[in-house]
Amino acid sequence: MDSLREIMELASRPGVLSFAIGLPAAELFPREALAGQAARVIRADASSLQYGLPFQPLKRRIVELMALRGVRCTEEQIFLTSGAQQGMDLLSRLLLPAGGQVLLERAIYDGIRLATRLQRPEILAVETDLATGMDVDEVEARLAGGARPAFLYSITDGHNPLGVSLSLEKRRRLAGLARRHRMPILEDDAYGFLYYGETPAPPLRAFEEEWVFYLGSFSKILAPALRAGWVVVPPPLAARLSPLKHGADLDTPSLSHRVIAGYLEAGLLPGHLETLRGEYRRRRDAMLAALREELPPGVRWNHPASGMFVWAELPPGLDAARLLRTAVETESVAFSPGMIFCAGDPRGDRCMRLNFTSLPPERIEEGVRRLGRAIRAAMDAMDGRAAGSGRS
Amino acid sequence: MDSLREIMELASRPGVLSFAIGLPAAELFPREALAGQAARVIRADASSLQYGLPFQPLKRRIVELMALRGVRCTEEQIFLTSGAQQGMDLLSRLLLPAGGQVLLERAIYDGIRLATRLQRPEILAVETDLATGMDVDEVEARLAGGARPAFLYSITDGHNPLGVSLSLEKRRRLAGLARRHRMPILEDDAYGFLYYGETPAPPLRAFEEEWVFYLGSFSKILAPALRAGWVVVPPPLAARLSPLKHGADLDTPSLSHRVIAGYLEAGLLPGHLETLRGEYRRRRDAMLAALREELPPGVRWNHPASGMFVWAELPPGLDAARLLRTAVETESVAFSPGMIFCAGDPRGDRCMRLNFTSLPPERIEEGVRRLGRAIRAAMDAMDGRAAGSGRS
Repeated sequence: MDSLREIMELASRPGVLSFAIGLPAAELFPREALAGQAARVIRADASSLQYGLPFQPLKRRIVELMALRGVRCTEEQIFLTSGAQQGMDLLSRLLLPAGGQVLLERAIYDGIRLATRLQRPEILAVETDLATGMDVDEVEARLAGGARPAFLYSITDGHNPLGVSLSLEKRRRLAGLARRHRMPILEDDAYGFLYYGETPAPPLRAFEEEWVFYLGSFSKILAPALRAGWVVVPPPLAARLSPLKHGADLDTPSLSHRVIAGYLEAGLLPGHLETLRGEYRRRRDAMLAALREELPPGVRWNHPASGMFVWAELPPGLDAARLLRTAVETESVAFSPGMIFCAGDPRGDRCMRLNFTSLPPERIEEGVRRLGRAIRAAMDAMDGRAAGSGRS
Repeated sequence: MDSLREIMELASRPGVLSFAIGLPAAELFPREALAGQAARVIRADASSLQYGLPFQPLKRRIVELMALRGVRCTEEQIFLTSGAQQGMDLLSRLLLPAGGQVLLERAIYDGIRLATRLQRPEILAVETDLATGMDVDEVEARLAGGARPAFLYSITDGHNPLGVSLSLEKRRRLAGLARRHRMPILEDDAYGFLYYGETPAPPLRAFEEEWVFYLGSFSKILAPALRAGWVVVPPPLAARLSPLKHGADLDTPSLSHRVIAGYLEAGLLPGHLETLRGEYRRRRDAMLAALREELPPGVRWNHPASGMFVWAELPPGLDAARLLRTAVETESVAFSPGMIFCAGDPRGDRCMRLNFTSLPPERIEEGVRRLGRAIRAAMDAMDGRAAGSGRS
């Protein structure tokens, strides 16, 4: 099981109910509004299709959006990217020398490894508590022990793949460590607007302006194919990102930047976010209820307060990658095996990442039923093997 | 004068007639058709806004488009990028090790230097003949002398900044050298569809399939802000580009890919290309006539058969960067000084790149008139200084 791309292909077989990919709900895309904006901006102004400087009005709207997340920033601190992934790539090029150190959690979004691959970094891996997030004691011990990471990567809210959000106390401590050790933190907030309880704690960037470099994205809150994200960094850093983006893709505005700015100017996003949160909360609750109902004893999972994922652990002896193949073949249900996110760490072998945003509640229930059957069959087979080997 | 970005800012002052940037004519963008396609694809299919695999129907249409350029290829050889610049960036990451060699012309598009900057390559620079293109004798001598470039970069048609197209004989020889020396050629064909005479010779890729990696772009033939281009490479290479693009920006289709595919499926591109070629030919001819009419003796320039640029050389003693500042300030006219394209080569100091596609003929005539006055003033000042220093 090499990559998300391969999972995507397994999971996209006809008839398969897939919890594998972190897809937003396609039926909730504000298609009519975006179609109208796209046609309008193209008709209104030929410069919507032309080369130019990065699109300033979108930066203005992003400053307003960041205020909704409890982050104060200025237009000069906003750098527009082609999604959060490009933010990771450009910041890695800027901050990470060849062979430099990167501080990561053991289980983490695989895109950060892809973004840093060419530098062949030394990965310093720390644990994550499934209730409170990254092990900050371990971060502190590493730094005290002489580690000098080019940056620490954090998904503060709606962690991918673990679903956890960092506790308020850990946010404060981590921001303090960044400041004290002059250690950049790349804070990936792709899921931060998708919270399902009260207004959550603000991101790390709200606690530390100079050393936290914030990555935002319209992929999860508007639409992935718009390929638009942003970075919030000190202005001197934004100036250094521009030639890097110029070399990567010219750093000229895309049509999407104008479409999104139009959508934001029309004041449509807050209502859309309410819709997303309401519906995703319903789906999360449907998944948690179905997991309680349908999974055999011995499987454990957590209760995410934000984001798109539940993280589940199979009983000892089961292998998630092997389970995936049989689950697709016998029950037409798919998930992401944990090992994708846990490079070289055997603890991932027993884990599954389950997306709860891409299917409506009744399909989630049906999918979890199928998953329960697949797990029970795998457990029975294991017991059979154990009994068989006992007899031999 | 550090970068194109700075020139862009000078040239965009109100009232300035600018020949500085390689802008396509904004008033020729097929806005109505693209507005219709954008609204249609968003309304027709929610997957137009979703994550997914690279958009296969666009690859099919690009295969047809390549046939118009005399290149036979298959969908498996097409890799979609966010403009030709991203093709350069990804291929550089794949092919160029740190400190590796790159074979370039002395005067060349600055984006290739930006795309290779992080590898700190050893640049092997060769001359260019303004009538027949890259000095292939010099390339051959370099290779015979033991040079082992990671790749050679070629703009075969409508060279940026020189305006020249490579002669047929040189195309054959260069393709042969690539084959014999197993030397990759990055062929940047961003301007290849914009030719103003008979159908031109086909690109290098038509002469050599295995070692020529072709870079195409919709920026000059449709619209830059769609941020869409492609690469034609052997299929094993396309497979290796995908994880690199995944790390850079997720390698998921953008909305633009569907908009462009719709436009191509509607059969609209060939007619649009005819329009572009007709109008750009008129503009090129207007510029060449005005240069003859308005520039003082001692300035020389070439006659491009394709692309967007005329390359002009000032008389000895004049400095193009200094001329640009006074031309903007006193005559409100701008161009790109040659040094932008000639890193570390003093021959660029006396040269100007003049774009002829972005302004209508009457504005071109007015701009060249202003340029002629600015040059004459600079020559007078120089004569004055010479006379003055004679007196002192």
